[in-house]
Amino acid sequence: MAFSFEPQVIGYIAGFLTTISFLPQAIKTLRSQSTESISLWMYGLFVTGVSLWLVYGWLIADPTLIAANAITLLFASPILILKLRHVLSAR
Amino acid sequence: MAFSFEPQVIGYIAGFLTTISFLPQAIKTLRSQSTESISLWMYGLFVTGVSLWLVYGWLIADPTLIAANAITLLFASPILILKLRHVLSAR
Repeated sequence: MAFSFEPQVIGYIAGFLTTISFLPQAIKTLRSQSTESISLWMYGLFVTGVSLWLVYGWLIADPTLIAANAITLLFASPILILKLRHVLSAR
Repeated sequence: MAFSFEPQVIGYIAGFLTTISFLPQAIKTLRSQSTESISLWMYGLFVTGVSLWLVYGWLIADPTLIAANAITLLFASPILILKLRHVLSAR
């Protein structure tokens, strides 16, 4: 049985890892309520970028792109919101 | 002059934002040397995922995918290394 290697498999694993990676950060942040070492600029830019990826995925009707970025948005947004609250309340 | 809207433009802006977003976190982390609220699991999974995106981009010879993920890796790796150091030295 000839084994044929599909590069797409690497792409799906990469997409899964980069998508799921924000879950442990969201859990840690929500549990600890600590955002001190987290960059507001990072999450502001990142959430904006992921939102645009979502729009792009919708425009080209790509379900994988839509699903991956919707999940990433779900995990990354609470981190951004909590960081924003801490920055605003520190003023 | 008819204005034709290219969805790819949204994709490039999204890619730029999600790539550049790790720069402010890298700067903040290296300056403050504080990684307390940063999740080791997040950066471990994320850096692994981005590395696989880089391999995938190389396999399908996609220069944009290679460039974006090489830059993201450049910014995200120091954060992972510093967090790993802090976790290991805390043991």
